[in-house]
Amino acid sequence: MLSDIEIAQAATLSPITDIAGRLGLSVSDLHLHGQHMAKLTQSTVNQLHTQPVRAKLILMTAINPTPAGEGKTTTTVGLTDALNLAGYKALACLREPSLGPVFGMKGGATGGGYAQVVPMENINLHFTGDFHAISAANNLLAALVDNHIYHGNALQFDQVSWRRCMDMNDRALRRITINQPYAYDTGFDITVASEVMAIFCLATDLADLTHRLSRMQVGQSTKGQPIFASDLHAEGAMTALLKDAFQPNLVQTLEGSPALLHGGPFANIAHGCNSLVATQTALRLADYVVTEAGFGADLGAEKFIDIKCRQSGLRPDMTVIVATVRALKYHGGVEVADLNTENLQALSTGMANLKKHVDNMRQHFGLPVLVALNHFTHDTEAEVALLQSAVESWGSSLHVCRHWAHGGKGALDLAHAVARMAQQTASPTLLYQDDLSLPDKLHAIARSLYGAKDVTFSAQAEQQLGTLAETSRGLPVCVAKTQYSLSCDAKLRNVPEGHTLHVRELRLSRGAGFVVAICGDIMTMPGLPKQPASHRISVDANGRICGLS
Amino acid sequence: MLSDIEIAQAATLSPITDIAGRLGLSVSDLHLHGQHMAKLTQSTVNQLHTQPVRAKLILMTAINPTPAGEGKTTTTVGLTDALNLAGYKALACLREPSLGPVFGMKGGATGGGYAQVVPMENINLHFTGDFHAISAANNLLAALVDNHIYHGNALQFDQVSWRRCMDMNDRALRRITINQPYAYDTGFDITVASEVMAIFCLATDLADLTHRLSRMQVGQSTKGQPIFASDLHAEGAMTALLKDAFQPNLVQTLEGSPALLHGGPFANIAHGCNSLVATQTALRLADYVVTEAGFGADLGAEKFIDIKCRQSGLRPDMTVIVATVRALKYHGGVEVADLNTENLQALSTGMANLKKHVDNMRQHFGLPVLVALNHFTHDTEAEVALLQSAVESWGSSLHVCRHWAHGGKGALDLAHAVARMAQQTASPTLLYQDDLSLPDKLHAIARSLYGAKDVTFSAQAEQQLGTLAETSRGLPVCVAKTQYSLSCDAKLRNVPEGHTLHVRELRLSRGAGFVVAICGDIMTMPGLPKQPASHRISVDANGRICGLS
Repeated sequence: MLSDIEIAQAATLSPITDIAGRLGLSVSDLHLHGQHMAKLTQSTVNQLHTQPVRAKLILMTAINPTPAGEGKTTTTVGLTDALNLAGYKALACLREPSLGPVFGMKGGATGGGYAQVVPMENINLHFTGDFHAISAANNLLAALVDNHIYHGNALQFDQVSWRRCMDMNDRALRRITINQPYAYDTGFDITVASEVMAIFCLATDLADLTHRLSRMQVGQSTKGQPIFASDLHAEGAMTALLKDAFQPNLVQTLEGSPALLHGGPFANIAHGCNSLVATQTALRLADYVVTEAGFGADLGAEKFIDIKCRQSGLRPDMTVIVATVRALKYHGGVEVADLNTENLQALSTGMANLKKHVDNMRQHFGLPVLVALNHFTHDTEAEVALLQSAVESWGSSLHVCRHWAHGGKGALDLAHAVARMAQQTASPTLLYQDDLSLPDKLHAIARSLYGAKDVTFSAQAEQQLGTLAETSRGLPVCVAKTQYSLSCDAKLRNVPEGHTLHVRELRLSRGAGFVVAICGDIMTMPGLPKQPASHRISVDANGRICGLS
Repeated sequence: MLSDIEIAQAATLSPITDIAGRLGLSVSDLHLHGQHMAKLTQSTVNQLHTQPVRAKLILMTAINPTPAGEGKTTTTVGLTDALNLAGYKALACLREPSLGPVFGMKGGATGGGYAQVVPMENINLHFTGDFHAISAANNLLAALVDNHIYHGNALQFDQVSWRRCMDMNDRALRRITINQPYAYDTGFDITVASEVMAIFCLATDLADLTHRLSRMQVGQSTKGQPIFASDLHAEGAMTALLKDAFQPNLVQTLEGSPALLHGGPFANIAHGCNSLVATQTALRLADYVVTEAGFGADLGAEKFIDIKCRQSGLRPDMTVIVATVRALKYHGGVEVADLNTENLQALSTGMANLKKHVDNMRQHFGLPVLVALNHFTHDTEAEVALLQSAVESWGSSLHVCRHWAHGGKGALDLAHAVARMAQQTASPTLLYQDDLSLPDKLHAIARSLYGAKDVTFSAQAEQQLGTLAETSRGLPVCVAKTQYSLSCDAKLRNVPEGHTLHVRELRLSRGAGFVVAICGDIMTMPGLPKQPASHRISVDANGRICGLS
């Protein structure tokens, strides 16, 4: 069996100008990055945004992730390929992969098997440099803060809250002590966790980007007043650093479907989906836009709707929930080592997780739902049949997808069902109104989506509710909790009952325009495993990258 | 008067494919980065390197720099434009600018006036991402080191010497304390000071790059043994991160002359000139290659010859030394505020600095020399005449250049003289033989080039002479001293006499293949000034960058 990189490298890619041509774009709409990658120019993006939305927006989400793997990105790619194969004009809209995890456990994030976006080596490494630009903008601001203090300039800092970032899994940088201009503890986050990344993905245009950057809080004065990026005159230079990156990237799938990859904020402390600019652009370039939200539907889809859609006015037309037999058996209590064995009982139990997400999407967001079963080799016919009839009994439908093994033709059934369903008129809604209080917003999310019986606050969070009452008014809340459970306890699989959402800390992401509710320990700088993936990566005598996964 | 960025933005650029066409290259030889920047593909580079050298290599160097400014980059651009204007095929070979100083005091590094490489905003900001790739490779290695210790893997570190880097002027990162896996003091250097950058610029090809990366020392074991990057299996993944960056970048001057910009190591702790790959490529693409070495001839030209040429077998055909009336008056004792006033006496005194460099190039390197006088508005006819007759009395010739104001046609006199002189057969030599001891190499440099009466060593350096005796055998020495003086005391202008070169510390750059002799305080992470240049930078309503200089 070929590895993902071998499949990707064996593919014959079309010139990116041809891919653009299928979207009605010409070479003058592109800023080329070699033969197979391009950015859409800012003027093309601006011009497209004056046109009406043309596409149906399909939100790809999933059950709660498990170690068994679900395959949301592969399904997004597979569905897009299948829609194009079926004669529709479809475009995938995805996040860019983060560089750090490529050398760690996770590897790249360009799909897998015969459902990949390519050129995978470029996309997984530096791609068009967007994340480096975001790191530079973030770190220029940090340098300006410490430089301001060093020179004894006008602002009197009592506390610096702005952290540096790097697109690397570097555990040692989580907590560092800086010794100059004065000693204080700070640290680095991975770039995808920077507020600059969240802003980059929510800004409507360059002016909005500048405006959002300017209002970020970087620390507090000795008089207890917040200090903003604008107080350091940082937003102009930061925008200059981000200007080119802000243009969406066009690549292709293995089957030549167009894909826009742009931005990639964390899905815990941020909202976890590709840039608004890319989505808005995509909606003017195709009839179907398939986009993905991070983690499971409790985090990713909720934030997609309640943060990204709320801020922008976008609404998805329908949602596809990805599940696998293996992952549902895991939710049903089976351990990873035993997932290849048929287990109808466990599947039957674990299906509850899927049902909860299907219900959530329909009841709380008013969205039509299809279930995509990402098929694995060891899935038995009995398992698939059991799941199929269950999903149908809930009033939805299940579509077996084999895009990993067969590309677009493996997901044709899903594609036809999506095309049918997307034509229905949906009435998507937000989960809560802007004017609710912060605790009420959290209750709405926790009770209706997570099935929690209550929300509690630490003493710190209680205090922050007071401090933030004014500044957070009208803003959506971004829950940072484990992705592995509907609760905030990673060990509680399937559909836990009677649990409580405990909010440890609240943080205002003023530039991004949301309040982060931190529930549990959230890691904003990953580490590398004992045997890093980097050990296997090399460049061969023909200049070809090997060992990337 | 227009600013540099206004001149650059008003220019009409040719498609980079046209610029490549003038070098006999087609679009298939290019990895495009938009319309005006491209990398030459690795296969094109490999193919060119099998061809014989075609061009004369002209080394652009200068007197000791002063706050008055000399204009080495503008003169490199102006001479290249003038040679092309005169009907020769000429190509400039330059370093890429570092991002950090763009927000600090120095600003960008793309020339000035009507002698610039463009697009200046892109080149000065992220360009094609090379420096970000170098930062990532450097920092992956750092993460692997600390991760190895964290997991208690096989190597027992007693001391970690590998530092992180960032392409930002961030004073606060000079010295940081890491708290995990165990507390130790380390810090960040600016990316141009990373050994990865030096290696990137000296490697002959990708295999040599990997080999050099593998032999870098990252620390010392508890048994006192050196630990190398190869012990962490880092070189493969680092090469994968550097692979695309390793391809030279093609841009153009304001007049459409081709220019290769590639790499940019510090000129103190490293050798300070563009990549060997770019120079070797350029020599197959034109009849005249004009390249620049960092700082004055005592540092830049010496290292160009004794490090880059020694390792590669390259030899320049001649050298051009850039001087200004203002800078020579400064060497003659005039303060910055008074440089606009005619002062023949001070000029006459300060000319000694120029004469020393002219003599050095001829006597110690066997190179023909021309002097380029970069003309400034306030230079008087009497001053120019005085300098001209002095230079002629030394058996050289002086050429007044007005490329800053007039572009290539302002440097035609220099171009004709260069074309004549480069046809003569020179017998360039290295300053010292490989098999001299380290102290003897330092004596050769200090006595003959700097005019020092002696070389002394700190106790630490004395001890290091012993430790490094074996491992440094046959390697050239890279002197890290102030650029402002022929001595190691920045305050001693002109031609100081009776001074001593004091070596404080020796460091083996094992991957780069040289020993750094640190004389005085060398800053490897700059800071920002009280009013950073970033304050003035912004993006206007048309998406155009303003305020960059």
